[in-house]
Amino acid sequence: MSTSEIEQLIQLMSKLPGLGTRSARRATLFLIKHRESLLMPLGDAMAAAAENVKSCEVCGNLDTEDPCGICRNPARDRKTLCVVEDVSDLWALERAGVFSGQYHVLGGTLSALDGVGPEDLRVESLIRRVQEDEVTEVILALNATVDGQTTSHYLTDRLADEEADLTITRLAHGVPVGGELDYLDDGTLATALKSRRST
Amino acid sequence: MSTSEIEQLIQLMSKLPGLGTRSARRATLFLIKHRESLLMPLGDAMAAAAENVKSCEVCGNLDTEDPCGICRNPARDRKTLCVVEDVSDLWALERAGVFSGQYHVLGGTLSALDGVGPEDLRVESLIRRVQEDEVTEVILALNATVDGQTTSHYLTDRLADEEADLTITRLAHGVPVGGELDYLDDGTLATALKSRRST
Repeated sequence: MSTSEIEQLIQLMSKLPGLGTRSARRATLFLIKHRESLLMPLGDAMAAAAENVKSCEVCGNLDTEDPCGICRNPARDRKTLCVVEDVSDLWALERAGVFSGQYHVLGGTLSALDGVGPEDLRVESLIRRVQEDEVTEVILALNATVDGQTTSHYLTDRLADEEADLTITRLAHGVPVGGELDYLDDGTLATALKSRRST
Repeated sequence: MSTSEIEQLIQLMSKLPGLGTRSARRATLFLIKHRESLLMPLGDAMAAAAENVKSCEVCGNLDTEDPCGICRNPARDRKTLCVVEDVSDLWALERAGVFSGQYHVLGGTLSALDGVGPEDLRVESLIRRVQEDEVTEVILALNATVDGQTTSHYLTDRLADEEADLTITRLAHGVPVGGELDYLDDGTLATALKSRRST
């Protein structure tokens, strides 16, 4: 049928998250049909990213510079550190444009099941940053999953041990903005009711 | 937030069918995290495909050779020609491995709405092939859509005009193998009943 070159492209595309074999085939055909406008630029962009993008030694963000643009930005508050699980969470917060401090990307969560311990995450460098940069507040912006919350507990204990007068906060739980009560799970509703505020 | 190199990769990825901005972001992050095993090979595979894959002058298939591997294969029957809309249909038939003749990729269907006329498809080269290769049967394997069926009608007329003793066939309609009657549309059920066979 199709040649090894096309087959190989389909096979590699199908490894991407969200693409199965069928959609990888469709995407590959689309790529070949849009050779000038998509296939060639995308190949170049991938080569450039493979060459230039690296992990920031300070915070774990991905950037072409090390330290990354956020760590090097003098306008950002170094006293407030937001801890996230993954680079995608950092991107989400940056897109929202509501945080002007520094980040620290853990690189995952503690998980007994998957055998992920503190030594597999950027925990020691977090403690070191808190001490060296005289951080006053650490915001634990981990996912509201069991593993995320376990990790938050662990980090709270570790950080409280190291720095007695450090403020440690977490993101608020509640009804998502624009969310309908009808579609929310019981846990979120219970939390939202418990944390109710006077208007 | 992320640098222009990452942004550009996300933006190009989001142009692929089946990927929105969110899944393109996820795929890009996945690519960067699997630099050696996926990002670099995929970049190379795209460059290779952009360089080497071309449309077969004879049948319209995509291959690194022209004429393509199917057209050059002496074991395949040149007297039976299967007409398909798109390369993906050719691939589907080849995967099924049930056809050993030659293909002809039309490159779409006639569509008054989209302004696609016979001159926009590989119609003239189809007629020429039928005459020059002394084809005895043309199988119209177009999609069972309105445009596909309109195009089948048109091709039947054109081919019958040119070659009086040519057999022109279409794919059978009916219940898909493994399909449940309950989930089938009325049109398919009606066709399947009308075309019923004695066992």
